[in-house]
Amino acid sequence: MQSWRDNLRRVTPYVPGEQPDKKKVIKLNANENPYPPAPAVMKAREKIRHLRRYPDPTASSLVRAIAGYHGLKESQVFVGVGSDDVLALSFLTFFNSDKAICFPDITYSFYDVWADLFRIPYEQKALDERFHIRVEDYYPENGGVIFPNPNAPTGILMPLSRIRDLLDHNRDVVVIIDEAYIDFGGTSALPLIDEYDNLLIVRTFSKSRSMAGVRIGYALGSEDLIRGLNDVKGSFNSYTMNQPSLVLGEASLKEESYFRDTLRKIIETREWLKEELLRLGFCFPDSKANFVFASHSRVPARDIFEAARKKDIYVRYFDRPRIDQYLRITVGTREEMELFVDFLEDYLFNINTGKF
Amino acid sequence: MQSWRDNLRRVTPYVPGEQPDKKKVIKLNANENPYPPAPAVMKAREKIRHLRRYPDPTASSLVRAIAGYHGLKESQVFVGVGSDDVLALSFLTFFNSDKAICFPDITYSFYDVWADLFRIPYEQKALDERFHIRVEDYYPENGGVIFPNPNAPTGILMPLSRIRDLLDHNRDVVVIIDEAYIDFGGTSALPLIDEYDNLLIVRTFSKSRSMAGVRIGYALGSEDLIRGLNDVKGSFNSYTMNQPSLVLGEASLKEESYFRDTLRKIIETREWLKEELLRLGFCFPDSKANFVFASHSRVPARDIFEAARKKDIYVRYFDRPRIDQYLRITVGTREEMELFVDFLEDYLFNINTGKF
Repeated sequence: MQSWRDNLRRVTPYVPGEQPDKKKVIKLNANENPYPPAPAVMKAREKIRHLRRYPDPTASSLVRAIAGYHGLKESQVFVGVGSDDVLALSFLTFFNSDKAICFPDITYSFYDVWADLFRIPYEQKALDERFHIRVEDYYPENGGVIFPNPNAPTGILMPLSRIRDLLDHNRDVVVIIDEAYIDFGGTSALPLIDEYDNLLIVRTFSKSRSMAGVRIGYALGSEDLIRGLNDVKGSFNSYTMNQPSLVLGEASLKEESYFRDTLRKIIETREWLKEELLRLGFCFPDSKANFVFASHSRVPARDIFEAARKKDIYVRYFDRPRIDQYLRITVGTREEMELFVDFLEDYLFNINTGKF
Repeated sequence: MQSWRDNLRRVTPYVPGEQPDKKKVIKLNANENPYPPAPAVMKAREKIRHLRRYPDPTASSLVRAIAGYHGLKESQVFVGVGSDDVLALSFLTFFNSDKAICFPDITYSFYDVWADLFRIPYEQKALDERFHIRVEDYYPENGGVIFPNPNAPTGILMPLSRIRDLLDHNRDVVVIIDEAYIDFGGTSALPLIDEYDNLLIVRTFSKSRSMAGVRIGYALGSEDLIRGLNDVKGSFNSYTMNQPSLVLGEASLKEESYFRDTLRKIIETREWLKEELLRLGFCFPDSKANFVFASHSRVPARDIFEAARKKDIYVRYFDRPRIDQYLRITVGTREEMELFVDFLEDYLFNINTGKF
């Protein structure tokens, strides 16, 4: 007999990331910002009103604020429920060729998932041995290109000259640059959207703006690209951004000095962390993100990961080819990172002396 | 030369519903609740915290509250960003047969859109001449069934005996009942989920709970159905429900008496409105929702729609076969409906005396 279970969509079961419940953990595993959002955001909570009404389907107040912030037209801004929502919708909107889209083999883990979801053919291009994107791999004809800059989980930034090279070889497809981590010291490709009407820049409020809990992502690009996103989104879901996210997102954009201070602190802590990691025998690509992707010269990454967890310090370990000797360590507060470095010192010393 | 525009997804451009900007309009066009959410919801705004962290991907606090409210297990509850999100995901999860899914020809306007989006074959079954669903149409083998109860935009409720009949003829596919409007006086099919492990009930906070602006929808069903939704959702988007919606949604469920009072007022106003509409020469199916779908015996619906709009009263008109002589009138406050009835009286009187 047939069963409804036969028609259930088959997916790889989801394993949620560790969300430790204890209060006193040091959580360096999700690239969250260690500082709270701007005080204006918390104050804006009282402006959350009119909840009985559907929210503005065009999210115009937030779109206007983002456009103003970046000096763009409102018609060049699209907002969504986190950059995951914006990126998935971009796949659906722009990647409808029979040719394979291209992205790095080591990169954000949802690209292949969305490609599978929307039945988009794809090719993963291997990073070089230093984890750099080889721009030449993206020269041949393809169905579109997407990569994060800085790349995740490596933190490596691609300079504008190479991005321009990639764009010059890809004028006929949409190129998406996922700039989730760009605020932590990278040079954005945003100025290039005037020159390349096929370039879409995707950003998020989750990292640099300390608002992962509010789910706001956005895309910037030519008016034609943004119209495409709006048309497709509107065709199947009118109301995605809720009223609270519109209010809180707008408030965040008004406190530039707080935002800059937070970024500066994270960047300073990251650079200090790099020195400490070097001293302790780690190597890592030069990260321009709010994490460091580090490998120890002698001690297996998994061992360090597990030992840290026993001390209530959570970092990220990926049991995947090529990167299974690396830990992705989110840059927390200076205090958190000092505790992490103290742990590493103890742990590595005890290993050397055979105490473990 | 090829262009990225060639690979743009083709969609029917979206025409947003009227969102009048003026302050003093009577907005009866989106089935919004005329009363604000429970006071506890507004008070809960100050509990919106920890925004720098990703929200709980399983939305467990809200899931627990909904499960408790309905007397179900947490494993029988799935939450999403409005019932549109829950319904679209349900299509993706459960409707993977080669056979056509079935839904009424006059119904919620997104069912065919999601079917197209996910390339699901579908058949629209014509309502009978009184706008009732003919259960026999759903007897033949199919890929799944979905319908709202009460149906939209008719407001007609299908009694449990006929739902049971439909379920008995559809044991091998998932049957989704979209109960967006059930709280306004209908009898829910919820008790049947114990008996039918293929029955999914979908609800929303947007109508009866006055929270359209927060975007909360949920599904109730057997643990196997809910696991299916969680697996598919988690496979491509971990974090959809933002922190504010978790906090505000939970607060809403705590004020049962406010909720019941609001419903009672709307139901009383609806019944009063029906009498007035009858008196003015309208006919309509007997609505159990927060709207009345009414047609006038002599005056074209479009004329009434446009005349009302000139008086800043917005109702909904669908220029579609079979229903183009109907207006969907949301039940607002008693005061709003009195103003609407006053308008109708004036307008119809002037038409009769040739003053228009």
